[in-house]
Amino acid sequence: METARVWIGGEWRAAHAASTFEAENPSTGKKLGRVFPVSRWSDCDRALSAAAEAAHAMEQAPGETIAAFLEAYAQRISDAAEALAATAHEETGLPVTPRLKDVEIPRTVDQLRQAAAAAREGSWRRVTIDRQKNLRSCLGPVGPVVIFGPNNFPFAYNAVSGGDFASAIAAGNPVIAKAHPLHPHTTQLLAEQCVQALAGSGLPKAAVQMIYHVENETGLRLVSDARIGAFAFTGSKGAGLALKEAADRAGKPAYLEMSSLNPVVFLPEGMKENAQAWATQLTDSCTAGSGQFCTRPNLVFVFAGEATEKFLKEVAAGFESRSPHALLSGATRERLDDSIGKLRKAGAELVTGGKNLDGEGYRYANTLLRVPGKKFLEEPEEFQREAFGNEVLAVVVDEPEQMERALEQMEGNLTASVYSSASGADEGVYRRVAPVLRRRSGRFLNDKMPTGVAVSPAMNHGGPYPSTGHPGFTAVGMPASITRFTALQCYDNVREERLPAYLRSA
Amino acid sequence: METARVWIGGEWRAAHAASTFEAENPSTGKKLGRVFPVSRWSDCDRALSAAAEAAHAMEQAPGETIAAFLEAYAQRISDAAEALAATAHEETGLPVTPRLKDVEIPRTVDQLRQAAAAAREGSWRRVTIDRQKNLRSCLGPVGPVVIFGPNNFPFAYNAVSGGDFASAIAAGNPVIAKAHPLHPHTTQLLAEQCVQALAGSGLPKAAVQMIYHVENETGLRLVSDARIGAFAFTGSKGAGLALKEAADRAGKPAYLEMSSLNPVVFLPEGMKENAQAWATQLTDSCTAGSGQFCTRPNLVFVFAGEATEKFLKEVAAGFESRSPHALLSGATRERLDDSIGKLRKAGAELVTGGKNLDGEGYRYANTLLRVPGKKFLEEPEEFQREAFGNEVLAVVVDEPEQMERALEQMEGNLTASVYSSASGADEGVYRRVAPVLRRRSGRFLNDKMPTGVAVSPAMNHGGPYPSTGHPGFTAVGMPASITRFTALQCYDNVREERLPAYLRSA
Repeated sequence: METARVWIGGEWRAAHAASTFEAENPSTGKKLGRVFPVSRWSDCDRALSAAAEAAHAMEQAPGETIAAFLEAYAQRISDAAEALAATAHEETGLPVTPRLKDVEIPRTVDQLRQAAAAAREGSWRRVTIDRQKNLRSCLGPVGPVVIFGPNNFPFAYNAVSGGDFASAIAAGNPVIAKAHPLHPHTTQLLAEQCVQALAGSGLPKAAVQMIYHVENETGLRLVSDARIGAFAFTGSKGAGLALKEAADRAGKPAYLEMSSLNPVVFLPEGMKENAQAWATQLTDSCTAGSGQFCTRPNLVFVFAGEATEKFLKEVAAGFESRSPHALLSGATRERLDDSIGKLRKAGAELVTGGKNLDGEGYRYANTLLRVPGKKFLEEPEEFQREAFGNEVLAVVVDEPEQMERALEQMEGNLTASVYSSASGADEGVYRRVAPVLRRRSGRFLNDKMPTGVAVSPAMNHGGPYPSTGHPGFTAVGMPASITRFTALQCYDNVREERLPAYLRSA
Repeated sequence: METARVWIGGEWRAAHAASTFEAENPSTGKKLGRVFPVSRWSDCDRALSAAAEAAHAMEQAPGETIAAFLEAYAQRISDAAEALAATAHEETGLPVTPRLKDVEIPRTVDQLRQAAAAAREGSWRRVTIDRQKNLRSCLGPVGPVVIFGPNNFPFAYNAVSGGDFASAIAAGNPVIAKAHPLHPHTTQLLAEQCVQALAGSGLPKAAVQMIYHVENETGLRLVSDARIGAFAFTGSKGAGLALKEAADRAGKPAYLEMSSLNPVVFLPEGMKENAQAWATQLTDSCTAGSGQFCTRPNLVFVFAGEATEKFLKEVAAGFESRSPHALLSGATRERLDDSIGKLRKAGAELVTGGKNLDGEGYRYANTLLRVPGKKFLEEPEEFQREAFGNEVLAVVVDEPEQMERALEQMEGNLTASVYSSASGADEGVYRRVAPVLRRRSGRFLNDKMPTGVAVSPAMNHGGPYPSTGHPGFTAVGMPASITRFTALQCYDNVREERLPAYLRSA
């Protein structure tokens, strides 16, 4: 088998490979017969030099040129959707329909088009002119952006097609994309479309480069290299924190989306009215994509009582009646099982699930755990262990004061939700818990599950540490997500004819 | 002598002091007879708890309440300007007129008033509403802000009255101010005015707290405490990087202004026309405040030739004819002398200065050094050693290509300037050097010295690492500087009556 080539400096080249890996189909557990390289530092070094060179041309490129490239690429992805979805399904086990073909690819195409519109329209620059002082400022490209994509979104967060990619390019930065090793061929196919769109776009050939994988040491070196402008990562907290530390030391802005439990609080009066409906919503949200979303609820808080028992019974029944599709890999399943084991060891009681499923592929039973509020308060950190996959832990509290104390123990999350009675009967408790949760989350919801991240200018897909590395930025939504990959530039007394067009007075 | 009290939790309390220190008059080298505490962790701990509590009330405070407080405080500083300037002069050696009373205090008052206007007007929140998706986002307070002020601006950057303070309060955050130990009594007097303005403002008593000094270990613990929202620092690179590392590890946004050489490039044709005028401008810029500005030029680049020799002679003559006032402390002078010694050891030639001045106080001779471009290129890092004070190093290059290579070695700076002929005769060289400098600086100037930082919405007092810790933010200019101390908040499907007023549809 031939080892796939990396895309560096405008060419598909044989990688300087430290080793190779083979992609696998998690639905069957079988190898897919394709071999990909783990790049040595020399590949990264070459990509960094090419990116640094490309950055100069990129920063001169008109917004229209960048927009046209992003649109051409979006169109190519849309046209190739069928083949792309089939490959991604093979590599990730995620369903072709509705997930990959009908939701994720259209969303990816939409993101690229929204980024194109933002590049063309230019308000992301936040041009500020003080004519009296002849002082002009704006945001501009920060320099080459290294992007590490996650395992769970082969398109919408892919390092070579997702939101980070679209944002970095829209601001005029070259991208060095590090594919996720669980869907390398999908990434290769995307890169091929990207290369086609880049040809004749007027952008430099090294505007986009792609490698499949690197060893840990090489990754740390890559994100702290002097030639990069910024670094973006979506993935596990362990890997994210190690990379963040390297980037921080080098003074490189690091935008990370690391982990989130997305707590959902169900208030007692509403529970009496809606136990069944709420159970269905929670079940849908926890089991879609086998729970492999960064915004799926991993922790819910409920008040002890009859209605809650009914609710939990309904959730358990829903979990049992649905057949989960395969997790992204054997390792994903092992980590999920390990986390569930540790939650149980800490004192959580298994309601349903908690085991591997028989048959082909890496499937795991939809899992519901429960723990009393009092117990949760004894070891709040232990019970905030992320279990990435189709699992949820219900914390059953006795009364509002205990609820408030439990929520005050929460770490930073991407989202937090409160369900309450439409009648206003829960208002007193709502007023106690809402501010606590709002401060600990990037997006605060009412009566709604957090899965489903709309690509809207008003979205915040971000949040307090450790859900991300900085609470001031969103990874989704144009033009706000673009600002992550910018530097503030200021022109003081610069002669009119020397200013970039968008800063001139005339 | 009684040890000064710290302002914690709304009270002037005796500090839990690890030790004490005495302020000194750098113009005379004599102790000022006032004793201040170095706080133990227990003082910080108490301040952190009070700040965390105050943050809840602060985030509910209407912009009008915050604005009225800032304006009342500004008025008090203005009314007390005479006494404040006299004390600051005593502690820093900076001239009362024009510097402290006529420039820095008015600027400080103006900053507080601009922050008040921004708090009242509210555009810093960047409210974004997507009605169709019922999704609303805005910036909100990030939580308690710890501010470490620098030695060189006893008012405009003071932790309890400067730009960081004004920005953090405007966004609705409590402030824990760490005074600079070189002007503790000035800071105490400011805090007293602040306390008066706070009384009856409707803001919590712990909205502002102030300590004088901490040991290094305590400082690291303070900026990485879970109760803080963000951390701001202005000062030396060594201290800044140590604190940044602690804050980074804890996931706390750190905004630092650390060091800058502020390169100024003089192009050859213009030099022939303007040697004398340019020499006067450079001399003024390097000697004002004895060069103790973060934006004073510490490094200039000139082309070898007759005009340049005339220029350097003029600068040397200007340096010799002006009598520098005292540096901020004996340690400041030692560090300056040490840096100059190291630059000379690396191969820089002394043109004038390079020694302590006789008489009272910590005065140092205005110092001009020069080095050939070729030599600079051999050890570019050695020659980018900041010499904080009244010193400048001239790099004399042979031709444009060498100039370009030398500038490509520059680290990130707050500013970079290019002086050129008004006739357009330098345009060719300008086009080569300008992009190189622009990328390495936060503010790029033409025909102007970088000292003098206008408080304008279009200002960028920031820049690439290591001049600051993040290239996307400015420390000066409203409302942009406020965004450093904010978190992005998003409300998804939240019921209308539960939204903050500024996010409602009606």
